[in-house]
Amino acid sequence: MVIVMTPDATQEDVDAIVSLVGTAGGSAFVSRGVSRTIIGLVGDVAQFSTLNLSGMSGVADVIRVSTPYKLVSRENHPERSTVWVGGVPIGPGTVTLIAGPCAVETPQQTLEAAKMAKAAGATLLRGGAFKPRTSPYAFQGLGEDGLRILADVREETGLPVVTEVVDAHDVPLVASYADMLQVGTRNAQNFALLQAVGAAGKPVLLKRGMSSTIEEWLMAAEYIAQRGNLDIVLCERGIRTFETATRNTLDVSAVPVAQRLSHLPVVIDPSHSGGQRDLVLPLSRAAIAVGADGIIVDVHPQPDQALCDGPQALVNDDLSELARIMREFPPLLGRKAAEPAPRSEAGPVAAV
Amino acid sequence: MVIVMTPDATQEDVDAIVSLVGTAGGSAFVSRGVSRTIIGLVGDVAQFSTLNLSGMSGVADVIRVSTPYKLVSRENHPERSTVWVGGVPIGPGTVTLIAGPCAVETPQQTLEAAKMAKAAGATLLRGGAFKPRTSPYAFQGLGEDGLRILADVREETGLPVVTEVVDAHDVPLVASYADMLQVGTRNAQNFALLQAVGAAGKPVLLKRGMSSTIEEWLMAAEYIAQRGNLDIVLCERGIRTFETATRNTLDVSAVPVAQRLSHLPVVIDPSHSGGQRDLVLPLSRAAIAVGADGIIVDVHPQPDQALCDGPQALVNDDLSELARIMREFPPLLGRKAAEPAPRSEAGPVAAV
Amino acid sequence: MVIVMTPDATQEDVDAIVSLVGTAGGSAFVSRGVSRTIIGLVGDVAQFSTLNLSGMSGVADVIRVSTPYKLVSRENHPERSTVWVGGVPIGPGTVTLIAGPCAVETPQQTLEAAKMAKAAGATLLRGGAFKPRTSPYAFQGLGEDGLRILADVREETGLPVVTEVVDAHDVPLVASYADMLQVGTRNAQNFALLQAVGAAGKPVLLKRGMSSTIEEWLMAAEYIAQRGNLDIVLCERGIRTFETATRNTLDVSAVPVAQRLSHLPVVIDPSHSGGQRDLVLPLSRAAIAVGADGIIVDVHPQPDQALCDGPQALVNDDLSELARIMREFPPLLGRKAAEPAPRSEAGPVAAV
Amino acid sequence: MVIVMTPDATQEDVDAIVSLVGTAGGSAFVSRGVSRTIIGLVGDVAQFSTLNLSGMSGVADVIRVSTPYKLVSRENHPERSTVWVGGVPIGPGTVTLIAGPCAVETPQQTLEAAKMAKAAGATLLRGGAFKPRTSPYAFQGLGEDGLRILADVREETGLPVVTEVVDAHDVPLVASYADMLQVGTRNAQNFALLQAVGAAGKPVLLKRGMSSTIEEWLMAAEYIAQRGNLDIVLCERGIRTFETATRNTLDVSAVPVAQRLSHLPVVIDPSHSGGQRDLVLPLSRAAIAVGADGIIVDVHPQPDQALCDGPQALVNDDLSELARIMREFPPLLGRKAAEPAPRSEAGPVAAV
Repeated sequence: MVIVMTPDATQEDVDAIVSLVGTAGGSAFVSRGVSRTIIGLVGDVAQFSTLNLSGMSGVADVIRVSTPYKLVSRENHPERSTVWVGGVPIGPGTVTLIAGPCAVETPQQTLEAAKMAKAAGATLLRGGAFKPRTSPYAFQGLGEDGLRILADVREETGLPVVTEVVDAHDVPLVASYADMLQVGTRNAQNFALLQAVGAAGKPVLLKRGMSSTIEEWLMAAEYIAQRGNLDIVLCERGIRTFETATRNTLDVSAVPVAQRLSHLPVVIDPSHSGGQRDLVLPLSRAAIAVGADGIIVDVHPQPDQALCDGPQALVNDDLSELARIMREFPPLLGRKAAEPAPRSEAGPVAAV
Repeated sequence: MVIVMTPDATQEDVDAIVSLVGTAGGSAFVSRGVSRTIIGLVGDVAQFSTLNLSGMSGVADVIRVSTPYKLVSRENHPERSTVWVGGVPIGPGTVTLIAGPCAVETPQQTLEAAKMAKAAGATLLRGGAFKPRTSPYAFQGLGEDGLRILADVREETGLPVVTEVVDAHDVPLVASYADMLQVGTRNAQNFALLQAVGAAGKPVLLKRGMSSTIEEWLMAAEYIAQRGNLDIVLCERGIRTFETATRNTLDVSAVPVAQRLSHLPVVIDPSHSGGQRDLVLPLSRAAIAVGADGIIVDVHPQPDQALCDGPQALVNDDLSELARIMREFPPLLGRKAAEPAPRSEAGPVAAV
Repeated sequence: MVIVMTPDATQEDVDAIVSLVGTAGGSAFVSRGVSRTIIGLVGDVAQFSTLNLSGMSGVADVIRVSTPYKLVSRENHPERSTVWVGGVPIGPGTVTLIAGPCAVETPQQTLEAAKMAKAAGATLLRGGAFKPRTSPYAFQGLGEDGLRILADVREETGLPVVTEVVDAHDVPLVASYADMLQVGTRNAQNFALLQAVGAAGKPVLLKRGMSSTIEEWLMAAEYIAQRGNLDIVLCERGIRTFETATRNTLDVSAVPVAQRLSHLPVVIDPSHSGGQRDLVLPLSRAAIAVGADGIIVDVHPQPDQALCDGPQALVNDDLSELARIMREFPPLLGRKAAEPAPRSEAGPVAAV
Repeated sequence: MVIVMTPDATQEDVDAIVSLVGTAGGSAFVSRGVSRTIIGLVGDVAQFSTLNLSGMSGVADVIRVSTPYKLVSRENHPERSTVWVGGVPIGPGTVTLIAGPCAVETPQQTLEAAKMAKAAGATLLRGGAFKPRTSPYAFQGLGEDGLRILADVREETGLPVVTEVVDAHDVPLVASYADMLQVGTRNAQNFALLQAVGAAGKPVLLKRGMSSTIEEWLMAAEYIAQRGNLDIVLCERGIRTFETATRNTLDVSAVPVAQRLSHLPVVIDPSHSGGQRDLVLPLSRAAIAVGADGIIVDVHPQPDQALCDGPQALVNDDLSELARIMREFPPLLGRKAAEPAPRSEAGPVAAV
């Protein structure tokens, strides 16, 4: 931690800081410049944070030089992690395709979408039973009925299920059906929910908040990790910017940056970021090419009748192209499409 | 609702839309331009929303021309509303000062801060017992102990209490102590929480999400209103932009815009937007001058020992200037500082 | 300047930096933390900038702790400056109203607008003869004919003229007519233009770029100052954000922040930021209340026939309210509406 | 164009618009909804723009439904264009690698960088002789000396030269040396410069403004096209957002969106968007994968001594990986790395 003093800070101001830091068990090194004095602190940064250094007399700025997250940091865990979901890996070496309908509407629609997903190479099924919607007048999902449909479709297709939970109260219910819990962009700083999924014993897909910095996203992951759950997959899904031609601006650079800062796998959602069907395949290619550990895409058997986000769902004609992308692009990055692993291989790693 | 067709849309595409709209009980008026055809829809817009018009063949764009919110809209309620909190009005004609510590830390700190607030002209006390923090390692608030302290300070000072609730599960608990429930910026789209406070029978202070558009903010209010609670005060607290010189960018224009679109009162938080003490008084003046119905500011007896947001808390020297601002600026806008009303006056209006 | 090393930086990396800084005539102080080493540099920061320190082995981050601007910095010039334009002051102690039509269209329209401006209390006339327009098909201004009209109207009303220049090549021409040169938001980083107006010997109104940080805005001012012209007035006119309800988001906080960092006067343009007539008066009040040294507003005798930005121009009914604002608000901040000064008073200060 | 009336608009308001539009040679179709009236206009949109419809009584909103750009629009030119630069194509079917030093510093540095570029598969050389810099104290480029160096290196390596021009006045000079003129992000709305390069008879590389919407970017291209030059290549280079972990946020979605709206080629600059060496190769892969017609990257023989943007320049070790990317990724999109064409093939197409 570095403290930058104002040009008119006095010797007393500097002394007060050195003394306070010493009291807190740290050391302070003072460098006097032509117009400014700088104080470098050595010791336990977390403890310094409680000292309110920025409120002290003569302090212009307090600059943090180590990361505020620990458990998800790559500094403390240099090897990149693989998260296993129902026997399917998400991590370095593979590219995982997660696909399915935005919302679960009927058993038939969900089953058809799952079959489409599988045909395109998906090894995990996505589908929402609880839908956070900007308007209270929009379709909010089928709730537990939707979870049952997902469980039935898993039974029939063998695809493990990724589904969203929007209320801390519902975590046990959703966790009893799902193989992976999704936390959506609007709940990226719903700390009660983050703590609840951290305690649920299931892998978590954590979407980036639409206005979260990468650091805040990792802090949200830290909330989950702190409750004992490190099976977290980060999902970039577009951020809010001034550009209105796309629903959000997909921040592909966030993938290599997050992978450098954290050991957690990072996937991309090309469907929600663009919000338009004809952007999904180009963005899927870009996602794999930039180094994402997976992609999560919307498919729907009849998008023009979808109750949620129909305009961005892939349809039949797109699926063979998605399958080709999943076949041809990962090898150029030394990866392969993720496949379910034999039980013995996945077992120990998946344990929470 | 207006549908804009693509340049290559066919007559069949147009006919399909006209027919579908007719089936839904609406009427469609077709205008053919040189390069584009436009279809104007008349009827129940909410119903049209379920038709997935944007997914139909030949459709380039679907433009909504009426507001998606109803209960909070000024179209449906032309008179601006006054919300009463423990007998104190927030609304047109007055400027209400809400002040207190960012976080409740001790009984003494809270009482001192409340006295500072009162000296500056505050008629409502703010203070957080549940604190949403970006870092899981930061102080998270005293919880119910903090609520008890707030209740005691209310008893001693007579100031009704505004305090945040961060989890839907805690709403009954917080509502049993508070006079007004605050929903914070990070929960602006936590729909479970919005619905819970909508059902709690207490006035709500709804902060704008740091990346919420004004429309999304009003939709969040609509979630609360839909559960039967129209005692909602909107609070602008700065939005996230590229500028890093301030913590957030205070969007003062949002006040007249939100007041034009909605009948709800709108207040400004000048403390959290700037994040710096020396910005609080200038932004407080701007807030009143732009037409806000109130301001909510942080005060603290010893900011350098505050556990949360000390650097932005006003201190003793600032309070007489805040008091002057509250005395001199509102009359220039034909308003006066809000005072608690005699019971008989406030009673009927406060009923939900 | 502070250098933060990576966790795996070696002693050789640190030594190389210390040695390089010494060669450049500076001193380096090394602080070793638990996981990071920090090096504080003392000496000529401008020279360090050429050392490419951030490219050296083991360097994680280079943090600048002094401002990159000098001539416009308040560190080097603690007293806030007053800029005189044709005898009218802009600076602390006063609030200057600059008003006029967005674009000069005809002699009559310009004269009428100038009379409206004067009636509202304006002491400087704004009006564009060269208009930068997003579309090449939009009205681009009357050019030198417009400048002649402005000069004639100045003759008739006594109001000094502020007008925009968009091309470095045109600076001498515009300067031969204008009392103050305006640099628009789209040219905030047109460095050739900034240097040209810096050499023109006339005061400059420098609008903030719509996506400029406050620091970049001050750097643009530094470009002007470097050519020998310190008669610069900064103008906040709204920044680009995700919010689309207003054309731009007026950043009122930028006024106290820029006044703290720089000695230059700061004014606000409430017309272009909101882009809507009914926002101009509320934002004018907020501008004065936050501490702006002046405001610049659009007026037009017949806004519905304006060739540029008609929807935001004030009309007759608004002017008496603007006059009232100019009368009543400045005194609450210890200021008064700016009046032309007798020659003897303005003369020496205005000299470049 | 569609006009949305306010809820309280009168019949007279509607009649006035219908009449005005008729006078301008257009037709107006009125659709009355439950709470709003909508008027669809048919005719010459450019002419309607001059009518100030949004300023008329009773008008809530004026919605443009056709694009404001014509010459660069794909509506008017459905086939995607190829731009030829010194015999090298940029367009569909190929991926063009443009590489070189950010700034020309010395003959030797430029020649070495050009050889590095060529080894990586580049067929065009980039290099700046005029550098727009945020700080007036930073290196501003060698000017004409730099252009001469570029011409010499072209002679020796056979690589046509792409170089930036920052002042309309310098366009003839720069055009006398360069094969392609670059307009930088800070000049994206420097209309005098856009018009000057439009008249210069050389292909133009038009960088997107750091806060330009895609529509504004295309309008900037329209300025160039309007002067008779359609040899324009659009370059996405990152936009300004709230995220500070990268210098800018690369908007890869802008590539398919701009290619859908415009017939012009679109390339990506992965160096300036990320601002960090270790992001350049991942973003280069993403650029090709999303469908960009080329990429433009910084290389430097000794980045730690670079006078400009050293930290983002690729070095020797990266070049073989870049060469591999250029070999292996384009075929997956049915493209190949662009090669210089025999004169006869390129000739007629390159003519302005």
